[in-house]
Formats: sequence, structure tokens, C-alpha cells
Amino acid sequence: MSIDVTHDLPWDKMREECGVIGIYGPGKDVARLAYFGLYALQHRGQESAGIAVGNSREIEFHKGMGLVTEAFNERKLEELKGHVAVGHVRYSTTGSSLLANAQPLIFRYSKGMMAVAHNGNLTNASEMRQNLALTGAVFQTTTDTEVIVNLLARYGQSSLEEALIKTMVDIKGSYSLIVMTENRMLALRDPHGVRPLCIGRLDDAYIIASESCALDTLGATFVRDVEPGEIVVVDGSGLTSIKALSQPRRAACIFEYIYFARPDSLIDGISVNRARRAMGRQLARECPIEADIVIGVPDSGTAAALGYAEESGVAFDQGLMKNRYVGRTFIQPTQEMRSQAVRLKLNAVAKAVEGKRVIMIDDSIVRGTTSGKIVQMLRQAGAKEVHMLVSSPPITQPCYYGIDTSVRKELVAATKTVEEVRQMIGADSLHYLSEEGLLAAMIGQNANVSRNTYCMACFNGEYPIEIPVGLDKYTMEGCGC
Amino acid sequence: MSIDVTHDLPWDKMREECGVIGIYGPGKDVARLAYFGLYALQHRGQESAGIAVGNSREIEFHKGMGLVTEAFNERKLEELKGHVAVGHVRYSTTGSSLLANAQPLIFRYSKGMMAVAHNGNLTNASEMRQNLALTGAVFQTTTDTEVIVNLLARYGQSSLEEALIKTMVDIKGSYSLIVMTENRMLALRDPHGVRPLCIGRLDDAYIIASESCALDTLGATFVRDVEPGEIVVVDGSGLTSIKALSQPRRAACIFEYIYFARPDSLIDGISVNRARRAMGRQLARECPIEADIVIGVPDSGTAAALGYAEESGVAFDQGLMKNRYVGRTFIQPTQEMRSQAVRLKLNAVAKAVEGKRVIMIDDSIVRGTTSGKIVQMLRQAGAKEVHMLVSSPPITQPCYYGIDTSVRKELVAATKTVEEVRQMIGADSLHYLSEEGLLAAMIGQNANVSRNTYCMACFNGEYPIEIPVGLDKYTMEGCGC
Amino acid sequence: MSIDVTHDLPWDKMREECGVIGIYGPGKDVARLAYFGLYALQHRGQESAGIAVGNSREIEFHKGMGLVTEAFNERKLEELKGHVAVGHVRYSTTGSSLLANAQPLIFRYSKGMMAVAHNGNLTNASEMRQNLALTGAVFQTTTDTEVIVNLLARYGQSSLEEALIKTMVDIKGSYSLIVMTENRMLALRDPHGVRPLCIGRLDDAYIIASESCALDTLGATFVRDVEPGEIVVVDGSGLTSIKALSQPRRAACIFEYIYFARPDSLIDGISVNRARRAMGRQLARECPIEADIVIGVPDSGTAAALGYAEESGVAFDQGLMKNRYVGRTFIQPTQEMRSQAVRLKLNAVAKAVEGKRVIMIDDSIVRGTTSGKIVQMLRQAGAKEVHMLVSSPPITQPCYYGIDTSVRKELVAATKTVEEVRQMIGADSLHYLSEEGLLAAMIGQNANVSRNTYCMACFNGEYPIEIPVGLDKYTMEGCGC
Amino acid sequence: MSIDVTHDLPWDKMREECGVIGIYGPGKDVARLAYFGLYALQHRGQESAGIAVGNSREIEFHKGMGLVTEAFNERKLEELKGHVAVGHVRYSTTGSSLLANAQPLIFRYSKGMMAVAHNGNLTNASEMRQNLALTGAVFQTTTDTEVIVNLLARYGQSSLEEALIKTMVDIKGSYSLIVMTENRMLALRDPHGVRPLCIGRLDDAYIIASESCALDTLGATFVRDVEPGEIVVVDGSGLTSIKALSQPRRAACIFEYIYFARPDSLIDGISVNRARRAMGRQLARECPIEADIVIGVPDSGTAAALGYAEESGVAFDQGLMKNRYVGRTFIQPTQEMRSQAVRLKLNAVAKAVEGKRVIMIDDSIVRGTTSGKIVQMLRQAGAKEVHMLVSSPPITQPCYYGIDTSVRKELVAATKTVEEVRQMIGADSLHYLSEEGLLAAMIGQNANVSRNTYCMACFNGEYPIEIPVGLDKYTMEGCGC
Repeated sequence: MSIDVTHDLPWDKMREECGVIGIYGPGKDVARLAYFGLYALQHRGQESAGIAVGNSREIEFHKGMGLVTEAFNERKLEELKGHVAVGHVRYSTTGSSLLANAQPLIFRYSKGMMAVAHNGNLTNASEMRQNLALTGAVFQTTTDTEVIVNLLARYGQSSLEEALIKTMVDIKGSYSLIVMTENRMLALRDPHGVRPLCIGRLDDAYIIASESCALDTLGATFVRDVEPGEIVVVDGSGLTSIKALSQPRRAACIFEYIYFARPDSLIDGISVNRARRAMGRQLARECPIEADIVIGVPDSGTAAALGYAEESGVAFDQGLMKNRYVGRTFIQPTQEMRSQAVRLKLNAVAKAVEGKRVIMIDDSIVRGTTSGKIVQMLRQAGAKEVHMLVSSPPITQPCYYGIDTSVRKELVAATKTVEEVRQMIGADSLHYLSEEGLLAAMIGQNANVSRNTYCMACFNGEYPIEIPVGLDKYTMEGCGC
Repeated sequence: MSIDVTHDLPWDKMREECGVIGIYGPGKDVARLAYFGLYALQHRGQESAGIAVGNSREIEFHKGMGLVTEAFNERKLEELKGHVAVGHVRYSTTGSSLLANAQPLIFRYSKGMMAVAHNGNLTNASEMRQNLALTGAVFQTTTDTEVIVNLLARYGQSSLEEALIKTMVDIKGSYSLIVMTENRMLALRDPHGVRPLCIGRLDDAYIIASESCALDTLGATFVRDVEPGEIVVVDGSGLTSIKALSQPRRAACIFEYIYFARPDSLIDGISVNRARRAMGRQLARECPIEADIVIGVPDSGTAAALGYAEESGVAFDQGLMKNRYVGRTFIQPTQEMRSQAVRLKLNAVAKAVEGKRVIMIDDSIVRGTTSGKIVQMLRQAGAKEVHMLVSSPPITQPCYYGIDTSVRKELVAATKTVEEVRQMIGADSLHYLSEEGLLAAMIGQNANVSRNTYCMACFNGEYPIEIPVGLDKYTMEGCGC
Repeated sequence: MSIDVTHDLPWDKMREECGVIGIYGPGKDVARLAYFGLYALQHRGQESAGIAVGNSREIEFHKGMGLVTEAFNERKLEELKGHVAVGHVRYSTTGSSLLANAQPLIFRYSKGMMAVAHNGNLTNASEMRQNLALTGAVFQTTTDTEVIVNLLARYGQSSLEEALIKTMVDIKGSYSLIVMTENRMLALRDPHGVRPLCIGRLDDAYIIASESCALDTLGATFVRDVEPGEIVVVDGSGLTSIKALSQPRRAACIFEYIYFARPDSLIDGISVNRARRAMGRQLARECPIEADIVIGVPDSGTAAALGYAEESGVAFDQGLMKNRYVGRTFIQPTQEMRSQAVRLKLNAVAKAVEGKRVIMIDDSIVRGTTSGKIVQMLRQAGAKEVHMLVSSPPITQPCYYGIDTSVRKELVAATKTVEEVRQMIGADSLHYLSEEGLLAAMIGQNANVSRNTYCMACFNGEYPIEIPVGLDKYTMEGCGC
Repeated sequence: MSIDVTHDLPWDKMREECGVIGIYGPGKDVARLAYFGLYALQHRGQESAGIAVGNSREIEFHKGMGLVTEAFNERKLEELKGHVAVGHVRYSTTGSSLLANAQPLIFRYSKGMMAVAHNGNLTNASEMRQNLALTGAVFQTTTDTEVIVNLLARYGQSSLEEALIKTMVDIKGSYSLIVMTENRMLALRDPHGVRPLCIGRLDDAYIIASESCALDTLGATFVRDVEPGEIVVVDGSGLTSIKALSQPRRAACIFEYIYFARPDSLIDGISVNRARRAMGRQLARECPIEADIVIGVPDSGTAAALGYAEESGVAFDQGLMKNRYVGRTFIQPTQEMRSQAVRLKLNAVAKAVEGKRVIMIDDSIVRGTTSGKIVQMLRQAGAKEVHMLVSSPPITQPCYYGIDTSVRKELVAATKTVEEVRQMIGADSLHYLSEEGLLAAMIGQNANVSRNTYCMACFNGEYPIEIPVGLDKYTMEGCGC
């Protein structure tokens, strides 16, 4: 059934995907820990939130639309008692906001109950779904996570570990997955390691989460990342690891570092904040500009702007301020305000920019709808020049692994030259970080990574995992996430 | 996920079951018609309400907890556009009030989408469910309707008509079922005809509903009842009938006439109100009592009281008044009020009963918790004598076909003699209608019916459909309804 | 601020007014008692409900829109602790449904805090309001109750008893009023006794309520009615009475007996149910009709129909059934259903009326919009003749004392002859009870009453309390009630 | 009546006060402009929001609890039609969150209707209130704004301009006030100019707002600040100014610059962001520390940290990240998490601080409850040294002019020495900006200001407006704001 979802102000960013968390902690209030973990992962999904708890006998759960603070209240949490929990936040779309699609998916099968939380996107979900339906499978959501659920049930005569391995053989694409029974927690990451997943420890409890910031929030210790192709099993006898499937190459999503992940997270050994700062420094090397100040578009452009300042010597300043109460609203601005809706979210600090030559740094440009308005705002506040720098390469290709990029024709860089985009946004100059520069910034953080470590398909169209013809967001709902 | 359900005042009645409605009406606002049809069937279920609509391409739906007026609003209804609709109201329990269990169940299978609304209870659901799970079926509810859904998907290679016949062969118990695809509507009634189901016409539209009162409310014309074992198919070429399965005997639930159905409904050719009145007349013949007035316990005892008055010549009067705003509340009465909670719902008309010998008629006694309080209230209002008559026999056995009777030991008539019950409720005398008298009242309405037409198992333990050992409400959630 | 109010199905009745209740009960959960008392008085107002509680130091309160079960929940009630409470239910209008207008009104003045609940309507409120404003009074509602509040504050140097007497001298019109301080409860009834108000006892507690049905619901004992012009004071030393003002004549609203009050209430010594039954008997004497059955329009026409049957010998039957879930809804029927919206509320019992000559009795006709549809429904169900009888005289004049009658031109009897109305509703005959007959029915209940006891201005235009020129509902919001 | 208010995570800041906005704009959607203006002023109050609109004939309004996005929806806004609007956001307290106390206050008096929105706090409200009550005034809230309302009504025989001047003579304390009639808008600022208030222009419309950021958000042009003691009148003939009262000295709240106001606002000619940066530079001069990096406690410490970096040459870095979804929640952290609740809001960037000597700058310390936890978090993340600097002097005295400082004994600096506070928070060193340094930073922004321009009573106890004995937050609800 459909449920109202209010909408954020339009903003020119890739859509966040999903976040997952699992807690195995006898003696702890695992639902509450999952709640606060989801709170830390909220940036990965604002459409819906859900928590399921296993108590040896059965699984109980609650899901709701909106932010985790909207979906849950004290009473709902108190009803969820057990020793193992799994939680999920789902990204926000306007089209098919269904509570039925909220995760974790909970189901009963021949061995009992199971809850599944998924971050990622299968590329062969339609094919798998068809196969299952032909032999009598019934689907209640439009997510590809339900395909995983049905495969696990089909392999229900095997142990759950074996059923997971068989399922991994069947499915293609990206998946960071947490599976919970009434008793135990299993976590796995696809063989390419597209989406992040890490392991933490809090006293005797184990925590598995999309990002390390969730571990920090809970006061847990970071242990390690889940390896690509690894299945981690946590139960009364501790944590065991199965190296299930391997792949010739990694394909970690580089956009996690550019924009998606929280800056205070550490993913596969690299600090997101430090990576962004390095991108800013690299940008300074590639695009030296005569200017009085360099500013970031809050919040995601700030780290790169600080890096640029550090490398170039141009002074960093706060030229744009964000309304810290920006949130959801149904209210439409008046017609005359609409062209300047960006003002609801951002405002220029006139005294900081007036009479100045300003470098403005943002992490990415998707449709290009917002940047022009920010440039105009800075000019109205008195900036003499506005140079826009972007700390990632132009996005020219859609993503099939769990990110809601627009269809190709909406991507401004797919159809316009850099000069055309510059004219559109009215900047004095416009520069993007090069693909090589982006890689260099990453390698600077960790000498073990290379071009083959990352998926950069949205920049260069080199898809590391095969894409079926005709696949797009509308053939199949991405990943349940 | 769990959702709050407020509770009615406790009342000593069998629980209502479920109500279903289907509309096939190109050019009509079928969702709105379904809404008002459910409004008329509200007495059959107050826990949740749902409507699904097919528009040739897909099925859209909305479900919500509570009364149909609580579950829907104008906007929800307006979003449901199509030419065929199916609606459901579900009975109210406190234990497992789950939105997930609300109906219609909507699912996708190999042939497209389907919505299923069910009134009844399968007696072999556990066995069927186990069989399905062993070959990979996944269940998201605890209702037996999901068993039906999975069987239909398993027979997905056949036509839907054939799949329904095969499913009817597999399942045992009671079911009045409406199945809707994106395009058409099918309705069927189990071979015993336990629960009612009838067909109506509104201009070119066909309407299938649990009770004829829904047809009247929509201004539709009553056409006929669906026959036991019949499948009715409605699509662009009109209505066709399949006589799918037959049974040696009918087993229509006689309690529909005693209490469940609305008095203005006509079920299998008999007016519910007339039947109740006839039960009252029969009671007068069986239990003549010297009294000044005869009163009914509102609302369901009124018709029998009028019948008693008619036959006996004792004057009918309104001795008890019902608060017409009685509804749902979370509020607990104060301790001192609790013993008299019946006063929140009923009040005696002192001037009508004071100094009188009163015959008070109710349709049934289940646990016997309320009758004593009403007797006491009448005495406090000045009644000189209070004789309680019941227009049905003592309930001594549980029901397995879709009614939430208490477990056997809670049924007061199962463990106490009539004299013991009389003492418990403090009446001057207590009489029940005999089984023979009940049948006589029914036969008086329609000469074609006989003892074999009805299921009267709750009175005499003669179950017309085999009951597996150990089956009770708690092994398997009754019927989704 | 405005708050959503859902709407009842349109129904052709005078609007209910308001209901008040006060509890003085140290040691009791007075808020809860007030809640259940309002529950019993719900028929007197469905727009909003409020309860204020005094605990010696201060007054706390909660008010909400809708039914008392919608406006309150367990937590809200639990927050209201004290030894004295006053509650109010307000009538439903669509125009100015304001939470700000909900009662009781709570305010602070020179002596502390006060809460006021009012049932009635002042006829000189505009004049009083103007006088107060000229000397600096500030108003936050549009109700005339705020005029009373300001007068009490102006007389704040006197004792509260004296301030009440002075205020009674100032104000004209109808008022049954409960005034509560942090400590005690005072109740008064206008000198004409237009609206009812009675006193009950529950152990050591005193209860004052609009109708005795509220006392019964709480298990309290009826003590007596508050006298017209009397002030009753309840505090730690018990109940004392002040005979404040007297008037040459009573002017009790006779419509309380015809329709407003609950049938199980006893008002000024007369049972409402018995009075209605007597009106039916009188109707039988005035309008003998050859017929097979007599039926009432549920619920309010039933008592008169029973009286008619008793007197005439024509058999009473249930020819019309009411949907017992009728309630509030925003949903509009489809266009084709609209003309028959009455079917959502009522349905004919075909087997009861087909082939019969039917007498149908209703308590009153206001606009005449509903009766025609019921007549038509009965004919469609097979009635051979339909004779409509009304157990009150034609309403030809508006009410200024607390009832929301339509403006005069909407009253069908004000502009049409009886024969014209009969044609409009399509009945075979139409008869109203005569004014003399109505009085006779009342006198039959209590030999002490006479024509001068009652206000029958809506029938005959003889207004017992002077009406300022130009006063109508839209100049001044009626009474806060 | 009480309404639920969810709570922010506890945070060691002074409570925000209130924000007001007025729009005079025939032909514009003034309610919508007010809505977005309040959205920009949301940091000044999160407890409740309200908007009133005048349309020549009357004033309509809506108020609700929570953020402006929670209190309003599209439909509520659409109902508010007119040419002049006034809006208010109220600060958040837990004690007396009452919708009744929400502003604007709307009332009727002898001349018609009026709406009043107030930011500030009267110091003689209790005395004024008593005087008014003795002559019959009635109060429905506990705010001092209602005192203003009653004074205006008492002077109702004068013109509104005259009534305002007389009222200004009566009241003492701080008030930035917007008064709206059905037709026009008046704004005034107390003679000391404690709280900010400025004027903007949007085409032909005039806008009055607490801060200039609201003007920017609406795309309006900043015109000037309202002068202390000035009344501004806006109606069909434009804007006129009355210099009503003058005072020997200004007393602008310096805390607006330190913490309250949005950094992108310009108040009395000084940019808040620039002022904070200057405080940071001054701090660098007063407290030079050997360190590797300087970080700000987000968000309010960032500007000072940048200033410190600029002056000292120590590198600025992002060592702390804020969860951008931090908001309201009822959920209590687990016992073990409670001591680290700060982690829900902030997280350290380990790679930024590990092995470093860190200077951490915050704008103020109130109770000192949070700083210690942040210091500990930085140490756990690997910081070698943590030096805490505060960009304002120690707060040792309560505020009586509209800020909810704790009572004196809760202010950590009032009872502990700097060294004791340093030990409590566990920093390697702790320094506050000096009073002289603070002033120097302000003078650096604008040569016309001096020690006498500002109220710095919370630092030095020199109260520029007389404080009655015994006045505290609990004698009288501050300002309605």
C-alpha cells in the first residue's frame, strides 16, 4: 500500500542507496543498538527504516516510512526483544515509495523464519525472477531482494551457509547483505566488493555495518572490512568466515569516497574525509586559478575546498551557509521564489565574498540544475569572479549497481561539453578533476589500490559486471535498496 | 509490522469473521463502490480494510488498520483507478493485529498480478503449507489465504479457472473467495457453502458480496447467491459460471442467521431479520412465561423479542438503550466502574421496567460474562422479575470454519448446566431455544431447507467437514479472515 | 487555529447542542469519570471534547477535536490529576470548527484560575461583548461563553457566588453552566430552565450533568434536577444551593424530549423514552390510518412507532435497519449514489414491508431532504402504501436558545403547506402531531406541567425570552456550545 | 492543552529564543513568504510555529507544535489568504510546551482583530499583569506577550500608534515586536535594541524579520535595521517611522553574534560570520598554543577556528563531523551508550587527528557537560594533546532578557575556576576569550560600536535594564518567546 513520503528540497546529487546493520549481542538491547546504528547510516537512505529482531523462537519486526526517528518510537523499540537484530534504511524515490518494499524482508520458509537486508543491485534479477515464477514462486514486492529470498528458500534443504553460496552463484551485481534467522546473523559481500561492509566489536557483541561511522556511534571498535566474496557467520560460538566466491578484480564504487559515504567513515582502509581532501589537493595541481578565496558547497564540497586551499595557498573561507533545519517539506515555494529555491538551503555570506575572486568547489555535478543558482547567488552577494571546480570527473554514464543516477540523457555531462556546461551555470571558468587525478588521490591514500580496484563506470562506461541489454531502473526496482 | 489497534468494549459475542466484495464495472468508480460496499459489510470485520483495483495493466491497492472509514481517505481512494476492484474487511483480534495480514493479498506470479480476498477458514492449511514450503515456497503472513495464493501460483501453467479448480481439490474447509487479476474478477464458494456470497447487478456492472445488504447500499439489484462449489467468472464478455465441485451435503453456517449477518440481508433465500423473528416466535412456543413486558438486548436481540411478543401477546417494550456512539477506545474504566462496564454501552429505561416482570431476550450466550450485568442493571432499575431467554441453543463446541469462538473451556454452556448458568447470571429463569426449534424456525422461512442444510456443529458437535487432530486458532491463523 | 473535522453523513435533523459534566470527588479519578460521563453525553456534541481538572493549586486541561474517544487517550487522561473536574462536548458545525472554541474555557484572573463549560445560548451576547471591549477586554474566541468569563473577571472583587449572581443579572438567554476553580465546582441553570441540568451522587462525590444518562453510566444515583435560576456550590463542606434569580415562567426546551436527549434520560421528572412513546400514542389518536404495519425511522422514531402500535393495534415491525458503523467520513459517494446516500445509513427489510401498507414514523422534519428518500426506499422494497407520520408539530421558526436550526427559509414547514411537503416526499399521506397533542403527551407524563412549562417557539414563534433584532447564528457564535 | 514535543539530543548551549517575521505584500502569497521566512529563522525556535494573515476583513491563522515544516502543510498554508502576514517560531523548552502559548497571539478587541508576535522578555510583566487583573483582565496564557495584548486593548480608544507608544512606556525589558491588524503591519524594537529586527523589500512588499538571513531566503533586499525605540508602520501608503522612545544607551545582546544568530545574517551592520571569525583571530592573539591543527566544534565553532588558523598559522582541519540528520527523538540510548551520547551527534575523523596536537574551539560553555565527552572522543581517536579554546568569556550570570540560561548555579563558570573546569573536561589546557578581546573583535567590525553598545551581563553581571528582585524564568514565562 502506498504511504505518504514528504520530499526533500530538490538537490543536484546522485541519490543515496541503502544502509544495513546487524548486531549479534546476547544480553544487549540489540534493537536499540540497531536503531542508533541506522541513525548513523541515515545518509544512505531516508525513504524507510526497519529493524527485525530474533529471539531464538521467532523474528519480530517493525518498519516505517521516513527517517529512522520518524519510523520508530520508544514503544516500537521496546517491543523488539531478542539477542540478534538486523536493520535497514532505504533510499528515497518519489515513484514507488512503498512500505511493502521497506526492508528487512521477513519471511517464513521450510526451516523457520529469516530476515534479509540488502544494499546493492542485482543485474540479473529479472531473469532470476522469471525462472522462479515459472515454478510457482509468488512475489509481493518489486525489489530484487525478494529474488534472493526465494532463492534461499529454494535451496532450503541445504544448510543456510550452503544456500547462500548457491545463491551467490546465481546472482550477478552488487550486494552487501545481512541475513538473520531466529538465532544467528550472516553477512556477505559480493565478489567485486562494490558496496562497503565492515565488522566491529562491542564487548562480546559483533556488529556488521555498511560504514564504520555506525561502529563509532555505538562506541564499538572497528575490526575489519568484510572481504569481497566472503560470508561471515556470527552465532553463539563466535565469528567464522567462509571465502565463498572470488573474482579476478575488485570493483569498489569510487563514488562512496566522492559523495555517498560519511566523511568520518573508513572504507577498505581509506578515510573518506582524507580521500576528499586529497581530491581537492589534486584539483589544485590540475587547475591552478588566481583567486582571493576558495569555498566549498556545503557540506560535501568542504573537504575538497580545504584540500585545494592547502595545496594552492588560496585562503579557505565560509562563503556559503546551509540552513541546518533543511529537511522534508510538502510546501511549494511561490512562483517567484521557485527559480531561487536553492536559497532555502544555502545562503551566501556577503561580507565574505563581496569584491572577491571566488573558487567554489562541489563534489559532483549530475543534472547541473543547482550549480547555476549558487553561482548567481554568489554574484548577487558581490563576488567579482566565480570559478567552479568539481572534485570528480564528469558523470556521463548511468549506474547499474545500486545508485539512482538519472537516465543517461539527464546527465548534463553526457550531452554537453564542459564549455557548454560552464555557460549554462554562468561561471567564469569550470573544471573537473581528471579520472587519472581521481585515481592518484586514492592511490595517495593507500599504495595498494590501483585502477582495477574501483568501479568508475559512471565516468568512463567501463562496467566491471556485465549489464543485460535494456536494464534500467524501471525494468526492475533496484535492490530493494 | 505491528500497528496499534484500539479495542471495542468487551462484549459477550462470537467474533465476527470477514467480509468480501468485488466489483466489475468498466466506466464506474469501482474503488468507491468497493469502499461503500465494505462500509455496509463493516460488521463482518473491524480490524483492517483493504481495496485493490485492476486497470488492465496492473493492480494498485491500499490497506489500513481499523474501520474502513479509518483505513481510507478521499486521496487514497482517488489513487485507485481501474475497472475492477476487490475489497475486504478483516475481523478484530487483539493478538496478531498485523497490517501484513490485512487483505486482499496482492502478489505477482508467472502470469502477472493477482489480488485475493477470503472469508472462511481452511482446515488443512498447515498440511498444505508444509508441503509448499518443502519445495521452496516463501510465506510473509500467517494466514491460510497465503496457502491459496501459493497453490494458485503453483498451478500457474494452467488457466486461472483450471488453477482454481485444482486448488479447490487441495483445500478443505470454508471459503468464500474473490480473486481479481489486472482484468477480471472470479468468485467462488466452497462446496459446502459455509459462508454466504451473492451476486448483484448495477447497470452493466457486476457485484459479488458477502451479503446482500452491500448490494442494497450500492443501489444494486440482487441477482442470486453463488452456489456452493461454483466458480463465477466476470470479464468483458459478462458473467459465466463453472460448477466446479459438488458435495453430498450443504453446511451453511446457521450462526449467520442468529447473529453474524446484518438483519437486512437475504442469505440463500432467507431474510435474516425474518429468521430471527421466527426464532423469537418459536421461543414463545417453547418457553411461555407470565410477564408484563418482553425486551430485547440491543441490537441483535430485538427481532427475536418482537417475535416473542407477537406469538405470546406479552407487550414489547424498549427496556434497554444503547449508546449510539459506542466504539473504540483505549481508556480503561476506573476500578469501581469496571464491574459495570456494560453501563457504557447499555442503560436501562427505568420508567419502562420498574415494577414489571421482564422477559429479556438475547441471541446467544458465549462466555456468559455480560448477561449477569444486564440482569443486575434491570433489577437496579426496578424490574420485579427478570427472565432470560436465548434465541439459539447452548454453544458447547468450538468452530473451525472461520469463527473465533473461544476455546471449548471458555464456553459457559460447555461446562455448566443451564441451572448453573441461570444462577451465575442471577435471572429468575433461563431458557434456550432448542435445536429442533431453531431448525423449525428456518424451515418456516423456506420449506426447502432441512437439518442437512446447516452446520450446527457449535451446538451439537456434528462437524460436516473433517477436522484434523489438534487444530485450533493458535496452530494456524484463521483464514486471513 | 483550524483543525480538520470529518463530517457525518448529512441527515435531516436539528443539530445537537452541547453537553456538560462536573465531578467533585476527592479520592476519585475525576478526569476518568468526566471522560465516561462525556461518553454518555456524546450525542449532545461531536465537534470537540475537553476536560479540565482542579487540584487545589491549579487547573490542568486537555481539549481535542472530534469525539471524546478521538480527543483523549489514556496518557492524556492520566496527566489530569485532581479532585474536581469539568467536561464539555461541543456540537458539530462545518463553518467554524476551531479548537480555540472548544470548551471548557480555562483562564486566569485576579483570584486565580477558572474553567467554564456552557450549554445554551445568550441572546444579548453581542451587546455585552461590545460593552466589555470598550473598557479594554480582549477576546480570543467567538463564543458567547467568553462574555461570561469576562463578566466573572470584572466582578472579580466579589466572591465567586456574588460574581455569578451579578453575571446572571447581566446575561439573557439560555445557560446551563458549570464553573470550576482550582478547588470547587459551581453549577447554575438559567431562570427559564431552557436546557437540562441534574445532580447525582456517587459515594461521597457529587456529579452535575446535562442528562441523567451520564449518572447512570457512572453508576451514580440521581439526586434531583438543578432548579431554574439556582446556583449549586459543591466543595469540601458538601453541596449548598443559592436560589439566585426567579422568572415568571419556565421555558424548558420541548425538543429535548422530541429528539435531543437520550431516551434513557429523565429530565425534570419526565422519562424521555416514555414521553416519546406517549407522543406516538397521541399520534394514533389524532391520525388513525388503515395499515398493515407501523415502523419507526431508526433510532429516534422507534419509541413513537411503538406508542402508535400500542394505541392503534397496528403491528409494529422493523422495516428499516441502520448500519451500526455509521460514522464520520470524508468520502463522497459516487454521483449516481449521491441521490440515495440515505442507503449508507438505512436499509429496508424487504421481507418485512413487501406488499404491506406501511406507516412510517419519524420524530421531526427539518429541511425534508431525507424523508423522501426513505419513502422511495420503502416503495422499492415493495411497500404498497407509505404513510408518513411525524411525532411533533411542523417546525416553522428558528431557535435562538442554543439549537442550530436552519435559517427560517430552509425550514420546509415554514414555506410549504403540509400537502406540498407530502408531494415533495412522495408519501401517500403525511400528518404531524398537533401542538395540543404534543402538550397532552407531556401532561400525561406529569400532571404538574402545562403550556407555560415549555418553550415551543420553533413551532409557534412564541419566544419566552426576548430576541434582539437581527440576531442569528452568524452574528454571534452560539454559546460556545 | 498539552501537546507532545519530542526532544533534541541534550546539548550544552544556551537555548535559542524566538524569531518573528512580518510581510506586507498586496498581490503576494504572504502566508507562503512567512512560511519560508520562518524556515530561515528556525534556529531561533523549534517548539512551535504560527502564521496569521490579514485580509482587510479579518485575521485567520494556524499554529502548530514543532518545526515549521511539522506545524504546516500545503493545505494549511492555502487556507491563509490575505495581503499582510505575521509569523513566529518559539523556542523549545520541556516544561511548559503549550500550543496555547504558541504565537502569534490573535485576539479581538474594541477596534477589531490583532495579531502579535514577540521576541524578547519583559522584566516587569508580573507587576503589569497583576494591575490588569485587578481591573478585570482575563489571561489565557502564561506569557508576557499577553500582558502587551491587554495593554493595547486598554489603550484601545487611542490610535494603534498611540496605544503602542503608551504600552512602550509601561513595559520594561526586551521586545522586538510585530503587530498586525486586518489591514496593516507595525513593528517595534525596545529602546535598548536588545534583540535584532530588520527591514527588507521584495518588489513592492515590505518585510520585517528578526534576522537578515530571512530576507536573503525570500530573495528580498536588505533595507536597514529597525532602530531601538522605533515604531515602523507599513500600510497602503508605504512605510513610515515613529521614533517613539529613546534611551541613554544601547544594550544589544552580544550573544546573538557569539552563538544565536545565523552566521549569514547581518545585525546592526555587522556580519555574524565575520564577527565570529574575528573572535577566533583575537583568541589566537590572546592564547597562542603550539599545535598541529585547529578544529571547530561543528557548526558554531567553525568560524572562530578558521579565524584562529588565519591569525596563528596553525592548520585548520575537519576533526569532528556532525551527523546531518541529527534531530528530534524520543528514544533513549542504552545505558552504556548514554555516557557517550555525544557520539550520536558528532564523530571524530581519526585520520585527521591521530598523533596530532589539537586545538579545539567552541563558541561557549554553559554547563560544561558536553565538552569533556568531545575531548575524550578526540583522545580515543588518537589525538596526542587536546587544547580547548572558547571564543567568548565565561558565562557567570543568568539572562533576564529573553534567553533561557540555566539558573546561576548550573553555570559551570559561576562556581568553578577555569582550572577546575579544565580538569573536569580533561583538556590539556583551557582558555576563554577575554571580555576586552570580545569587544575588540566587535569594534574591529565596526568602529562605531563601544562597550556601551552591548549587553554583556551574562559575562559581567552589569544588567543594562533593571531586574526586579526575585525574577526568574519560573515566576513568569519568558516573553512568549
